[in-house]
Amino acid sequence: MVNVNNLIKKVRKQPLIKNEKVIIKKKDATKEWFAFLRDEICKDFLALEKEFVKKNSVKPYANKPEPKFEKKRWNRQGGGGGTMSILRGELFEKVGINISTVFGEFSKEFRSQIPGAEKTGKFWASGISLVAHMGNPKIPAAHMNTRFLVTGEGKNKKFWFGGGCDLTPMVIDKKAKNIFHFGLKEMCNKHDKKYYNRFKLWCDDYFFLPHRNETRGVGGIFFDYLNNSNWEKDFLFIKDVGLSFNKIFKEIINERMNLKYTQKDKTLQLEKRGRYVEFNLLYDRGTIFGLKTGGNSEAILMSLPPNVSWI
Amino acid sequence: MVNVNNLIKKVRKQPLIKNEKVIIKKKDATKEWFAFLRDEICKDFLALEKEFVKKNSVKPYANKPEPKFEKKRWNRQGGGGGTMSILRGELFEKVGINISTVFGEFSKEFRSQIPGAEKTGKFWASGISLVAHMGNPKIPAAHMNTRFLVTGEGKNKKFWFGGGCDLTPMVIDKKAKNIFHFGLKEMCNKHDKKYYNRFKLWCDDYFFLPHRNETRGVGGIFFDYLNNSNWEKDFLFIKDVGLSFNKIFKEIINERMNLKYTQKDKTLQLEKRGRYVEFNLLYDRGTIFGLKTGGNSEAILMSLPPNVSWI
Repeated sequence: MVNVNNLIKKVRKQPLIKNEKVIIKKKDATKEWFAFLRDEICKDFLALEKEFVKKNSVKPYANKPEPKFEKKRWNRQGGGGGTMSILRGELFEKVGINISTVFGEFSKEFRSQIPGAEKTGKFWASGISLVAHMGNPKIPAAHMNTRFLVTGEGKNKKFWFGGGCDLTPMVIDKKAKNIFHFGLKEMCNKHDKKYYNRFKLWCDDYFFLPHRNETRGVGGIFFDYLNNSNWEKDFLFIKDVGLSFNKIFKEIINERMNLKYTQKDKTLQLEKRGRYVEFNLLYDRGTIFGLKTGGNSEAILMSLPPNVSWI
Repeated sequence: MVNVNNLIKKVRKQPLIKNEKVIIKKKDATKEWFAFLRDEICKDFLALEKEFVKKNSVKPYANKPEPKFEKKRWNRQGGGGGTMSILRGELFEKVGINISTVFGEFSKEFRSQIPGAEKTGKFWASGISLVAHMGNPKIPAAHMNTRFLVTGEGKNKKFWFGGGCDLTPMVIDKKAKNIFHFGLKEMCNKHDKKYYNRFKLWCDDYFFLPHRNETRGVGGIFFDYLNNSNWEKDFLFIKDVGLSFNKIFKEIINERMNLKYTQKDKTLQLEKRGRYVEFNLLYDRGTIFGLKTGGNSEAILMSLPPNVSWI
């Protein structure tokens, strides 16, 4: 397994920053990137949704409301805010994409856990987070998140990237798993031959429900505290995670959007979504941390599925 | 508000037990009581379900499978076990009643939180827990739990009762709230004139979702560490909580089971149930404690609603 403590130590050991303007540029560049990626994904998902509805809808297309992402701005008490974009459709039963840039001070109880924030608690974070719950149970649910964090003050700032993406099939489905992992491996290998294996294991370890003795899905990649002392290189990787996720997930959707499914598949999907809820509310660090540190609950809980059942 | 620390101190100060057999008798009596109460409630709820189906079902009653509580025994790794009884019907969309008697040792991280368990971690607990999710959104969801706890070893044992019951209306509904609270107040007053106000406030305080700034429902009563140095008196109160809950909730069901409702009411119900899930997985002490100490996850999560939605 990845030794997280070593990564945290490495982040803590980052040298003093010579010129603070460099950090401002990094912040601006990542923030802009997350907004650009959001726009790209929204455009592509919306095109898929329209294509699907045109072809499959019982009602004539002209009589239907045009599918669209509804956008909603939110502010964070304590500093910053973000924008949620939600599409509630037929192919995409519910897909939410949230971008946010938040800053402020961590409360004392959290400071020791966050490298660089030990003394003053100061932090700045920007990121994108996406969860897609599909209408057709033969298309897996998908999750993607990438983020850039800066902690500390003045020249004594620390920064790193985190993120990942993973797939949760609703009915057993090896093909989608293979497409997803093959694509991620190919992408990771372009950046570092060690990444895929390391981040795949980390993902398997993270998305696990001990009380059910079950994995949440079929994994993907997961990473945190990414800082190779080469910010440009790391940022290229972060960009590639977002773009490749979009490309691979669209491939999976295209390949499966017209598959027939039974009532049994649908029932299984609603049950499996229950496990998704259990994971997010019981274990997901981001969710629990966000809710307990005054985050915007609507934006945080946007990831919860539209329809769920516990039999 | 109730000063919980004072109650815990009082539990810790319990005198040494002169004769250990007295505790065995208490354990047997409570365990038997919880099983008896379960049988009573199952019988009454099943009669209501049958009455409803006979009157309202579209299909002829003779062609339907007979409504029944399905029973399932479960064992707890570490010691003890219980029985779940679940009815999945039309009036009762899903009602689960769980009785359990578990024992063993708390792990070191939990011991300091539990009076009497500080040294060896030894505990014994028996209880009944009920959650009813109703088909008709005009009937509130209901929760009831009573339990008896014994901690420590030899003559140095400590014991107390805990429990309560509360109502979660799905659509705004003052009448059910009034019936519920009036009934509970009348019952409490028979035992101690201070109980109702104290336990009502404790309930309001407990069933609150900070991240939504919402209460879970309209409350009821909630109490813990109940030990008035008169075990028989306390046990009578515990019995009365169970029996009165059954009586009052049946009254509410009878009064509302034939009310008409709209699709909008149903949608609201599914959304409101989402809050129920959020509370149970994010805040409920019993759920989190149970899942993290090797409890039976099927029995613990039996409380989750059959159908839920997050829009």
